[in-house]
Amino acid sequence: MSVQAIRKHVTSASRGALFALVTALALVHPAARAADWLPSWNDGPSKSRIVAFVETVTDPASQQYVPPSERIAVFDNDGTLWTEQPMYFQLAFVLDRVKALAPQHPEWRTQEPFKSVLAGDMAGVAKAGEHGLLEMMAATHAGMTADEFRAIVADWLATARHPRFKRPYTELTYTPMKELLAYLRANGFKTFIVTGGGVEFMRVFSERVYGVPPEQVVGSSIRTKYELRDGKPVIVRLPEIEFIDDKAGKAVGINRYIGRKPILAFGNSDGDFEMLEYTTSAPGPRLGLIVHHDDEEREYAYDRQSSVGRLERGLDEAGPRGWVVVSMKNDWRRVYDAGQR
Amino acid sequence: MSVQAIRKHVTSASRGALFALVTALALVHPAARAADWLPSWNDGPSKSRIVAFVETVTDPASQQYVPPSERIAVFDNDGTLWTEQPMYFQLAFVLDRVKALAPQHPEWRTQEPFKSVLAGDMAGVAKAGEHGLLEMMAATHAGMTADEFRAIVADWLATARHPRFKRPYTELTYTPMKELLAYLRANGFKTFIVTGGGVEFMRVFSERVYGVPPEQVVGSSIRTKYELRDGKPVIVRLPEIEFIDDKAGKAVGINRYIGRKPILAFGNSDGDFEMLEYTTSAPGPRLGLIVHHDDEEREYAYDRQSSVGRLERGLDEAGPRGWVVVSMKNDWRRVYDAGQR
Repeated sequence: MSVQAIRKHVTSASRGALFALVTALALVHPAARAADWLPSWNDGPSKSRIVAFVETVTDPASQQYVPPSERIAVFDNDGTLWTEQPMYFQLAFVLDRVKALAPQHPEWRTQEPFKSVLAGDMAGVAKAGEHGLLEMMAATHAGMTADEFRAIVADWLATARHPRFKRPYTELTYTPMKELLAYLRANGFKTFIVTGGGVEFMRVFSERVYGVPPEQVVGSSIRTKYELRDGKPVIVRLPEIEFIDDKAGKAVGINRYIGRKPILAFGNSDGDFEMLEYTTSAPGPRLGLIVHHDDEEREYAYDRQSSVGRLERGLDEAGPRGWVVVSMKNDWRRVYDAGQR
Repeated sequence: MSVQAIRKHVTSASRGALFALVTALALVHPAARAADWLPSWNDGPSKSRIVAFVETVTDPASQQYVPPSERIAVFDNDGTLWTEQPMYFQLAFVLDRVKALAPQHPEWRTQEPFKSVLAGDMAGVAKAGEHGLLEMMAATHAGMTADEFRAIVADWLATARHPRFKRPYTELTYTPMKELLAYLRANGFKTFIVTGGGVEFMRVFSERVYGVPPEQVVGSSIRTKYELRDGKPVIVRLPEIEFIDDKAGKAVGINRYIGRKPILAFGNSDGDFEMLEYTTSAPGPRLGLIVHHDDEEREYAYDRQSSVGRLERGLDEAGPRGWVVVSMKNDWRRVYDAGQR
């Protein structure tokens, strides 16, 4: 059918009939073709649980049918959608920004934690603790407008490379997870990212990389204010934490930004525990999932002992709570997009 | 084409072809039929400006074409989507809740502003000022879970009646504005409500009444916390203001929740000024609109002198800024849904 033929057809069709047609197309399309949507997932219990859940909640004949408006799925980012080792990528951004800004701050040569950053002394950076981190956040994330910050992040993403894989950070996003996001959306789900990272950092690439638009990103934030500069309105970023979207904060963030309970939650660390608990304890069909990093060769292997992305309670309670533990090693045919092992 | 035929067609079609088909259907559908979408708008400059804007930004051949992902439209609620006289409906809710809770609070009989509320003395309530309002908000909006609060609001909306029109408040939503919301969505816009009112109050009815889902409501909020009650996770509402989504706060709220600039903003009072300024000062095609309440007979007439919904700067600057001032009296064929004058 040519576009012209469609145009003619549509113009003459009633609006109701058109909606029925579009709805029918949307409904019949994806569930039957999970294999096409999830080629990077190995067959096995994890994939089966996911597909069974999606097919059930989208089947109008099922007792467990969920209308599209309630098909909210939430995903952690660090360690769930992209790699988080050897350090959170946003921390790599902070360190790179400190180095880039150092010429304008001669005082940093003698002032911690900046001194340690500039010397490449990560132990010294760690010693500065939370206070040191907040100082670095204020120096690198505040004082500019929202538009300026986005441009800085975009520049960094275009040039920075991961120390082990030597690829841009946005290429270290997990292929199976991007497939899952697309599969869910094709089934009428609205996909959200709920990240402990900065919401304005994440929004720079969420749409391009994950197909998740800025308005569907929930994250940590700093205060901002509105002002006119040369008569032009801008949003100015202030050096003051507004909200930490981690642990119990993820449930609070979901209620604040989304305003209803998700039916599917996917995380990887104990920082996601409350998000999964909040999602899966509500009545009706619910699915909780955890990425288990057990693939040292293709990515990293870590859980209970890790300082980044520690997963302990989640491993202990996944069984009794019915959460799916996804093994990166066994469940994923590939980890990253083409060209990667 | 039967659903079965479509199913067969779709199963055999490539995914790309299906997307092209659905996209084509979505694209050709609405712009040409504005007359069908906006029957409650009188022909005239306001309607023409709206339709011209929508047709331009959705026309792929236009220099001013805007891709669907950027078609963000924001609407104030009080006085823009529903009536706000003789007092904000949420204030009516607060007063009704104080009365309903009074038996459990004998101390309110002697304590302002509760004493005045119970005596029906609005001058006394007003005298208690902002502090009095905050006390009433704490007493009526906090101390319960988010789910409990939603149930309370839903009950109130089902039973409360407007003092003049004797109808449920949700029936005092403007028919022409609901048509406009639907028209924009049919043209690929994502419609958001950006309200000075409470975000959790608004979310109870936004989807049912306006077709705007909870996750597309930006509003004022109080702090919340996550906790387990009898092993069940709940969001508890705390008596502490978190965010006031009014005036410059509306621009801040848009950046915080939506994360990109709208291309269309619709308000009615000077509380919406910064939202319109922020929206329309960005480059590219932008449209700012203001509902002017000039219809004493069918609704209310007020602007520069009103304590509720004052509109002064907006009237003065609409001309030079190119904003459309919509006259309720002249531009709207009807104000409310069927049965209303």
